[in-house]
Amino acid sequence: MAKRMNINADMGEGYGHYDIGNDDAILQIVKSVNVACGLHAGDATVMRDVCLKAKANGVSIGAHPGFNDIWGFGRRQIRMNADDLEYLVAYQLGALAGMAAYAGATVTHVKPHGALNNMCAVDRDYARAIARAIKAVDPSLYYLALSGTEMEKAALDIGVPLSREAFIDRLYEDDGNLRSRTNADAMIRDPKVASERVVRMVLDEEIISVNGKKMPTKFDSLCVHGDEPTAIAVASACCEALQAAGVELVTLPEMMAV
Amino acid sequence: MAKRMNINADMGEGYGHYDIGNDDAILQIVKSVNVACGLHAGDATVMRDVCLKAKANGVSIGAHPGFNDIWGFGRRQIRMNADDLEYLVAYQLGALAGMAAYAGATVTHVKPHGALNNMCAVDRDYARAIARAIKAVDPSLYYLALSGTEMEKAALDIGVPLSREAFIDRLYEDDGNLRSRTNADAMIRDPKVASERVVRMVLDEEIISVNGKKMPTKFDSLCVHGDEPTAIAVASACCEALQAAGVELVTLPEMMAV
Amino acid sequence: MAKRMNINADMGEGYGHYDIGNDDAILQIVKSVNVACGLHAGDATVMRDVCLKAKANGVSIGAHPGFNDIWGFGRRQIRMNADDLEYLVAYQLGALAGMAAYAGATVTHVKPHGALNNMCAVDRDYARAIARAIKAVDPSLYYLALSGTEMEKAALDIGVPLSREAFIDRLYEDDGNLRSRTNADAMIRDPKVASERVVRMVLDEEIISVNGKKMPTKFDSLCVHGDEPTAIAVASACCEALQAAGVELVTLPEMMAV
Amino acid sequence: MAKRMNINADMGEGYGHYDIGNDDAILQIVKSVNVACGLHAGDATVMRDVCLKAKANGVSIGAHPGFNDIWGFGRRQIRMNADDLEYLVAYQLGALAGMAAYAGATVTHVKPHGALNNMCAVDRDYARAIARAIKAVDPSLYYLALSGTEMEKAALDIGVPLSREAFIDRLYEDDGNLRSRTNADAMIRDPKVASERVVRMVLDEEIISVNGKKMPTKFDSLCVHGDEPTAIAVASACCEALQAAGVELVTLPEMMAV
Repeated sequence: MAKRMNINADMGEGYGHYDIGNDDAILQIVKSVNVACGLHAGDATVMRDVCLKAKANGVSIGAHPGFNDIWGFGRRQIRMNADDLEYLVAYQLGALAGMAAYAGATVTHVKPHGALNNMCAVDRDYARAIARAIKAVDPSLYYLALSGTEMEKAALDIGVPLSREAFIDRLYEDDGNLRSRTNADAMIRDPKVASERVVRMVLDEEIISVNGKKMPTKFDSLCVHGDEPTAIAVASACCEALQAAGVELVTLPEMMAV
Repeated sequence: MAKRMNINADMGEGYGHYDIGNDDAILQIVKSVNVACGLHAGDATVMRDVCLKAKANGVSIGAHPGFNDIWGFGRRQIRMNADDLEYLVAYQLGALAGMAAYAGATVTHVKPHGALNNMCAVDRDYARAIARAIKAVDPSLYYLALSGTEMEKAALDIGVPLSREAFIDRLYEDDGNLRSRTNADAMIRDPKVASERVVRMVLDEEIISVNGKKMPTKFDSLCVHGDEPTAIAVASACCEALQAAGVELVTLPEMMAV
Repeated sequence: MAKRMNINADMGEGYGHYDIGNDDAILQIVKSVNVACGLHAGDATVMRDVCLKAKANGVSIGAHPGFNDIWGFGRRQIRMNADDLEYLVAYQLGALAGMAAYAGATVTHVKPHGALNNMCAVDRDYARAIARAIKAVDPSLYYLALSGTEMEKAALDIGVPLSREAFIDRLYEDDGNLRSRTNADAMIRDPKVASERVVRMVLDEEIISVNGKKMPTKFDSLCVHGDEPTAIAVASACCEALQAAGVELVTLPEMMAV
Repeated sequence: MAKRMNINADMGEGYGHYDIGNDDAILQIVKSVNVACGLHAGDATVMRDVCLKAKANGVSIGAHPGFNDIWGFGRRQIRMNADDLEYLVAYQLGALAGMAAYAGATVTHVKPHGALNNMCAVDRDYARAIARAIKAVDPSLYYLALSGTEMEKAALDIGVPLSREAFIDRLYEDDGNLRSRTNADAMIRDPKVASERVVRMVLDEEIISVNGKKMPTKFDSLCVHGDEPTAIAVASACCEALQAAGVELVTLPEMMAV
C-alpha cells in the first residue's frame, strides 16, 4: 500500500472587517485545516465559510483553539488557571462543531494555536487541559500534537486519540526541538530545499536536524504555514514532490485509519 | 392528567471575575434555564458550572444567545447583517452544547437575550435568523418565543420546534404586548398579586391585561426574572401557588411532550 | 489671498496583528487625519505610529471615535444611553491625546466614525453627546461635522468649534443628503470626474446634486475615503486639480484660522 | 512638622453592567485612588464617576493601567513586546486624563495593576516600559512603585518622579518581599494587629518581617486592598491609629511635596 501523509495548515484567521492570510490558496494544497474558533481570531461568519470550503475541497476540519485575546492574535503567552483554560478550549470545540454543522461536516482534530501551542509543548498542565477538553466535548477528536512534546504525553496519558505532527518548513535542532525563529535560517523558504527535505522525512520516517543528525520520528501530519510570503510556493512544491515520490496525501481521519 | 407548566429564567451571566445574579436561588425554583453563551455575558467556566448545576437539579438547559457585546451586557440594540447574526447565534449554540457535555446534558431550547430578544419580537429578519441558526446547528431545539411575536411566526415558517412563553411578573397591555418598563407598574413585585394572577393565567389559559381584558393565549413556559430584588420572592410564591392549584412544574422538554 | 481647503481621511484602522487600509499613501495626499482610537479599530501602537507620521508630514491630527465594537469595525449602529456615549467619546479623546504626545503633537479635531457618524447626523442626542465630550475634555477641538446635520447644530448650540465637511467622492441628492451607497453610482470612482467636480465645489462654494441642482454650501474640509480601490487615484487627482486651480491645501487649524 | 503618610487603594473596577468592590466606603478612608483605565476593568462611565467622587473627597487620582484583558481582570500574566506594553499604558494614561477633566482634576500618579504590577516588580523591561509611558504622556506623574523592585529602579534610571509604596495588610518575608498569598497568613485581617503594625512602620520608617526582622524602608504611600471582606475594617483601623499617633494623612502630591 502506498505511503500516505496528511498536510495541515491554519485557516480562518480573519475577524469582522479584518481579513488575513490566503485561505483559498492554502485550501488547494492541504488536506486538513486548523480553524480559528473566535477567541484569538476567526468569527462565526469566517468559521462557517471555512467549514463550507473545507468540505467542498475534501479537506478535514480541525479546531485551532487559542487564548481569548483578539488583540494579541493568540500569540501572547498568557498564564491562567489550567481548569479555566480547559473550559475555554471546550467552548471553542463546541462552537466550531456548531459552525461545521452548516457544512454537514464534523470536526475531527484539535491543534492549539500560537502561544497556547508553544506553552502546551512544554507545560504539562496546559497540555493536559487540552486533552481533558477533548475528552469532555468529543473524545473522538485527534489531539494534533507536535511530536515529542508534553502534548503527546498528555494525549497518551489521558487517553484521547493522538496525531503527531512535524513541520514542513522549519529547521530542527539536534535535540528534536524546532530551531527558534530568532535564527535567520529557522524557516525554510526555498521550495526546492523544502521539497527534497520533506520527501526524505516522509519516506525515511525521520527528521534531519540542522546539523545533519537523523532522528527517527513518527508523524502523521506535516504543518505548512500560510503566513510567510514564500509559504504557498514552498507548500505546493512539497506536495508535488511527495506525490511524485508516490506518497498519497489524505485527510487526517484517513491518515489515522491506516 | 394534571395541568403542567414550565418556568424559565436567565442564568450564568457572570464573566471572568465579575459575578452577577442569584443563580443558586433561581435554580431551586425554575425548571428551565437560559444560559448566557459567552458573547454578551457568561464564559466557559460559568457555562459549565451552570450546566452541571442545572443537570443536578433536574432543570432543562437552553441557550440564551445575545449580541457580541460584553460591555453592553447584550442590552444595547445593534443593527447588523441578519446572516452574520444567524452565524453568531449558531456559534453560541455550539459553544453551549460543548459545555453541556460536561454535565452529560443536552441543550433543549434557545431564547434570545435582552436587546436581541426585543428586536426579534418585532423584526422579521432577526427573528428568522434565530430560527435558521437552530435549523443549522440542532433542529430539535425549541425556539422559546414570546407568544404572538415575529419569533413565533419565524419558528412556524422555518419549521423549528416552537415553545411559547409568557411573563410571570410583567403586566400586559390590551393588545397583548408587554407593558413598557417605563411605566412604574410594569413589573409585578407583590408575590401575592403575582401568584394569584399566574394561577389564573395557567388554569384559564389566558392573559389578563392591565385593564382587565381577557386574552386567550397559548404558552408553554413562564419567564421569571432574577434581577429584580423581589424576583425570588415573587417566583417562589408563584411556583407554590401553581403547585397548590394542582399544576405540575416540569422541564421544557417534558412540557412539550404533553 | 488664495483660496484654501483642507482634505481629511480616516487612518490608523489596524488592530493588533490585523492591518487594513493604505495609510502611507493617504498621508501623502491629505492635510488632516481622523485617527481611530482603539475601541472600534486602532490600538495604542497604531495610534502612536499614525501620530508620528502625521506630525512628520505636517498633517493635523483628529480623533475618530467610534462605538466600542472591534468586531463590527464601528459600522454597526448601536443604541445606547447618550451619557454613556459621551463618556465613551471623551475616553477616546483622552487616549489619542496621550498617544499624540509621543509626536509632540496635539489633537485638533474630532470626527465620529462609521455608524456613529451616521447616527449623529440625524440623532440630536447622539450629536450633542459628541459636543459635550469635546467641551469636557478639550473645548478647543473642532467638531468636524457633515454640513447641514444634527452635528452642525449640536456644535453651534453647545458652543464648541465647528468645522464643516463635504465629500469629495460621493454624490449628493437634491436635498443635500449623501446619495445612499445602495445606489451603484453613489461613489465617484473616476478621477477626472471627481477632480472637475471638486474644483467647482471649492471655487463656487456649492455642491451640485446628482440631478444638477446647485446648493450653496459652506465647508472647511473635504473627506476622501481610503477604503475604495480607486480612492488613492481619485484623491490624488482631486488634490492636484485643486492646486492647479490655485487652491492651497492646508491643515484643519490653518483652514479654520482663515 | 507632623509626620505625613498617604494611603492608596484601587477603585473603579466595574465594567458595563458589572459592579465590583466597595468604592464609596474606600473613598472615605484613602487619600489616593488607583483608577482602572478601561482595558482590564473600568470603563469611561465608571472612570468619570470615580474621578468626580475623588475630587469631591479631596483624594488624589492615579492611573491603574493593566493588561488589555477584561475577562482576566488584569490578573493573568501576559507576555508581550515591551514597546507595545509601553504604548498600551500610555493609552490608558491619556484616557484617564480625559475622564479626570470632567472633575477639573489632574492625574498625579501611575501604579500598574494586578499581574502587570507583579511582572513589573521583577521584569526590568516591563518596569521600564511603564516609566517610558509616563515620560511620554506626562512626565510629572509619580510612578508609584513597590519599594525595592525593578519599578523603583526604572523610575530612577529613566528619570520620572518616584513614589514608593508598602502594604498595610500584607506580611513581608525577611528579604523584603511580600509573603506569597499561598500562605494562609499572608494577609493581615485583624484590624488591631494591622493598626499597631502600621503605626510602627510609619513612625520607625521600617518594615518588620514575618520573623521579626526590622528592615529600614522608605515609603510614601501605604496600599490597602478593597477586595477582602475585612479590608474596610482593617483600613479604617489603620487610618485611625495613624492619626491618633499624630500622623497626618495626605494626598500623594502633598506627601511628595514634603
